[in-house]
Amino acid sequence: MIKPRTMPGVMELLPRDQIAFQRVLDTIRRNYERFGFLPVETPVMELSDVLLTKTGGETERQVYFVQSTGALEKGGEGVPELALRFDLTVPLARYVAEHEHDLAFPFRRYQMQRVYRGERAQRGRFREFYQCDIDVIGKDSLSVRFDAEMPAAIHAVFSELDIGPFTIQLNNRKLMRGFFQSLGIEDAGFQMDVLREVDKLDKRGVDAVRETLVGEPFGLDASVVQMLLDFVAVRSTGYDDAFARLDRLTGSNAALDAGVAELREVLTRVRQFGVPESDCILNFSIARGLDYYTGTVYETTLDDHPQIGSICSGGRYDDLAGQYTKSKLPGVGISIGVTRLFWQLKEAGLIDTAESSVEALVALMDDEGLSHTLDIARRLRAAGINTEAQMEPKKLAKQFQYADRAGIRFVVLAGSDEVARGAVTVKDLKRGEQFEVAREELAGSLKVELEQWRATQGR
Amino acid sequence: MIKPRTMPGVMELLPRDQIAFQRVLDTIRRNYERFGFLPVETPVMELSDVLLTKTGGETERQVYFVQSTGALEKGGEGVPELALRFDLTVPLARYVAEHEHDLAFPFRRYQMQRVYRGERAQRGRFREFYQCDIDVIGKDSLSVRFDAEMPAAIHAVFSELDIGPFTIQLNNRKLMRGFFQSLGIEDAGFQMDVLREVDKLDKRGVDAVRETLVGEPFGLDASVVQMLLDFVAVRSTGYDDAFARLDRLTGSNAALDAGVAELREVLTRVRQFGVPESDCILNFSIARGLDYYTGTVYETTLDDHPQIGSICSGGRYDDLAGQYTKSKLPGVGISIGVTRLFWQLKEAGLIDTAESSVEALVALMDDEGLSHTLDIARRLRAAGINTEAQMEPKKLAKQFQYADRAGIRFVVLAGSDEVARGAVTVKDLKRGEQFEVAREELAGSLKVELEQWRATQGR
Repeated sequence: MIKPRTMPGVMELLPRDQIAFQRVLDTIRRNYERFGFLPVETPVMELSDVLLTKTGGETERQVYFVQSTGALEKGGEGVPELALRFDLTVPLARYVAEHEHDLAFPFRRYQMQRVYRGERAQRGRFREFYQCDIDVIGKDSLSVRFDAEMPAAIHAVFSELDIGPFTIQLNNRKLMRGFFQSLGIEDAGFQMDVLREVDKLDKRGVDAVRETLVGEPFGLDASVVQMLLDFVAVRSTGYDDAFARLDRLTGSNAALDAGVAELREVLTRVRQFGVPESDCILNFSIARGLDYYTGTVYETTLDDHPQIGSICSGGRYDDLAGQYTKSKLPGVGISIGVTRLFWQLKEAGLIDTAESSVEALVALMDDEGLSHTLDIARRLRAAGINTEAQMEPKKLAKQFQYADRAGIRFVVLAGSDEVARGAVTVKDLKRGEQFEVAREELAGSLKVELEQWRATQGR
Repeated sequence: MIKPRTMPGVMELLPRDQIAFQRVLDTIRRNYERFGFLPVETPVMELSDVLLTKTGGETERQVYFVQSTGALEKGGEGVPELALRFDLTVPLARYVAEHEHDLAFPFRRYQMQRVYRGERAQRGRFREFYQCDIDVIGKDSLSVRFDAEMPAAIHAVFSELDIGPFTIQLNNRKLMRGFFQSLGIEDAGFQMDVLREVDKLDKRGVDAVRETLVGEPFGLDASVVQMLLDFVAVRSTGYDDAFARLDRLTGSNAALDAGVAELREVLTRVRQFGVPESDCILNFSIARGLDYYTGTVYETTLDDHPQIGSICSGGRYDDLAGQYTKSKLPGVGISIGVTRLFWQLKEAGLIDTAESSVEALVALMDDEGLSHTLDIARRLRAAGINTEAQMEPKKLAKQFQYADRAGIRFVVLAGSDEVARGAVTVKDLKRGEQFEVAREELAGSLKVELEQWRATQGR
C-alpha cells in the first residue's frame, strides 16, 4: 500500500475551496477579456535551449527538467532537452517571435497558466503556481499610453474580486535613474546596489539603512542619503498631488524629465480610464529588478494587509524577444500570482469557502419516486440550474443535512402527494423557507431566486 | 539567436483558435457543473512512487519524469522522484484516498487538465493534451443508476457543442463475459485474446477475423465464431428495441443475466433523463480494456465522422484506489480527450476560427479625441462589453480593416462632430450597418445587439 500524498509546495484544494479559487480565476479572466486582451496558452514544457537563453543564476537553478522514460534510459549527458516554464514571459517571447507574422500588433494577450519553480519547500512558497498575465507587445515601438491600461485592467480585477481596499503604485525606471544621476550616482551597477539597500527599509528600518549607505563600501554623503530617503518616501495622495510632485522634479537631467513625462502621461490616461485617485498613487520606492524593466513599474498592495506585499506587479520593457528575433518588440505587462494570493487571502480570512457550484438537490424518498426525481433534475438542468439528483433513497433528514453541509441552496422534493398534484416542494436552505410550486414552474421560479440573489451579491 | 519553436506533439493555437478552444472547454465545464459535478484540480507532477504503482508496460514507458536542477546535479540513480501525470484517473485515485475523510460520498468530481505522454511524434498524436473527466465514486458501493448519469451529461455536452449528430454507445463487461461463457469460452485471458481479434473487425474485415478465430491458436468452432460475430454486430435502434434484445439474452448464466439487468437499469434511467433514443444505443462490440472496467462501458462517435473514432469513453470500475487505501471505492466515469477532439474537428471543418472575444473597438482619429476614446471604452467595459481602445490615432480605414481581420464586431467612432452632439457612430461589421446613438445609450444598445445575436445563435 502506497501512502497517497503530493509533493511539498503545491496547493491542492478540496472542492469547495476549488470552487472559490475557480471564481477568482474566472473574475480575472472576465476582466482581462473585458479590456480586450486575447487568450494564449502555451505548452507547460519548452525546449531547454529555448527556455534557458539567459545566463540565469537563481532562475536557472530553480528550473525543473523533464525527460521521457526513453531519454532517461539513454542516460543524460548535459542538460535534458525539455524543461517546465518558470514564468509566462519567456513563453510569451517565444510565442510572439514564433508566430510574429500571424499576429496583429500591438498584440494584447492574456495568459493564465501554472508555472514551476524548484523553490526550497517553505510555508507559503509554491513550486507550482498560477500566473495570470496581461501584456501589450508593440512592433518597433509602443506608445507609453498602453502603460495606462495595466492599472485600469488591474483596478477592474481587484474591485470585482472584492478583497478590500487596494492601492496600485507606480514608479518609473527612467525617473529613478535620472534622480540618481542628479545626486551624482551615475553608475548603473552602483545604483542597483544602493537600491537593494533601500529595498530593505521595511525590514531594517531607516536608521540601519542610512548607516549602511554612509558607511563602506557605499560611502555616500549623509545629505545625499537623506535626499535619497526623502525621494523613496514619496507617496502621492491623488492625481493633482501626483502631477504637482512630478512638476517639482523636472529640469535636472534628461532621464529624469523623460521619466516625469511618461508618468504624467500614464496618470493622465489612468484618470481618463476612470480609476479613482485614491486607488492609484506614485511610490518612488518601487524598483522591481533594474535589469529588466525600463520605464513604468507597478506594484499593488492591499491597504489592510501590507504584510502580504505586492499582489500584482509588472512594468515596461524595451525588448521582449531579442534572443529569438531581430524584430524589436517593446512591451508592458503585469502579472498576478494567484495561487499565492489565494492562499494568503484565505489565511487572512478574506476568502471564504464557497457555496457549492451545485444549486439544487432533487431529493428521493423511495424507489418509486426515481422517475420523478430524474425528470425534475432534467428540467432544472435544461433551464441552466446546476443540479444533483439523489439516485438512491435516503432519510429526508439525511438529504437535507447533506445539502446543508455541501453548500447546496435548494432541496426539491416530489413525494407521492406532490406528484399527484403536479407540484414540488422546495426547501430554500439559504432563506430557511419552504414553498410549493407547480412542477412546470419550478425551474423558472428557482432561476428568478438565483438571479435575484446574484444581483444583490453584485455578481 | 535561438530559433523560437515548441517540442513536437503539442497543440499551440493562435488567439482566435484559442478562443474557439476555450469555448469548447467552457461548454464542457458548464455542462459538467450543470450535472452536479464538483471541480478538482491536482498538481501536474505526482511523486513517482505514487503515480507508478501499477506494473505498467506501455504506460510506464511513456511517462515524463521531472527533476529540479539540484536533483539533476546530484546525479540520478533509479527513477526520479517526480513525474508528470499521464491521465486524470490515477491523480483522482490519489486525491480521493488522500482526502477521503473530507469528501462526501458518492463523490462527484469533474477535472479538466492537461496530461502528458511520451508518445512517438506523429500527426494527430499529442504528448500534451487536455482530458475532461467526470467520475462518481462511491464508498463500499455505488448504485448502477449512476452509470446512467454519464450518457446524460455527455449528451448535454455534445448537444451544446453543436458538432453534428452523435451516438453514445453502451455495452457491459459482465454481459460480454457471460456471453463468452455461454459459448464455452470460460478463461478470462482467452476471452481477452478473442476480443482483441474481434476489435480488428473494422480494419481487417469479417472474413479475415473469422479465419483467424477458427484457425490456430484459437481453434474455435465455426458456429461459435458466427455467434460471436453476430453478437458483436448488435446495434439497438431505440430503447424498446434495446430492451427486447436484452430480454432475448437472459437465462443462460449468472454473469450474462447480471449484465442484462445492469444495462436495462441504465437504459431505463438514461431515458428518464431525457436522452433521445436515437442518440444512445447498445453496441455489443465495445470492450475497452478488459482489465480495468467491470460493468458498463461507453464510447461516443460522431455519426458523420466515424473515422474520428470514439470522442468520449469510459466505464464502471470496481475499485478506484486499492493501491492507496483499504476502503473500497467503486466508481463510474467518462473522459473527453478534448485536444485531439478539437484538432480533429478543425481538420474536418466542424469548428471554425472563432470571432474575437473582443466585441468592440473604440476608434481614435486624432490625439485630441483620446480622452473621449478612453471614456467610451470605460463605459463599455463597465457594462460588461469586451472592448479594445485604439490608443494611437490611425487612418479610419486601417482601424476598420484591423477590426474586420481581428473578428471584432463593432467599431465605435467619436469624431469632433459626434462629441459636440454627445453622440457616437457605431459601425456593425457583422450586419454591415452603421448607426448613431447617444453616448449615454451606447453600452445599453450594444448589449441588446449582442444578447439578441447570442440568443439567435443559441448561446
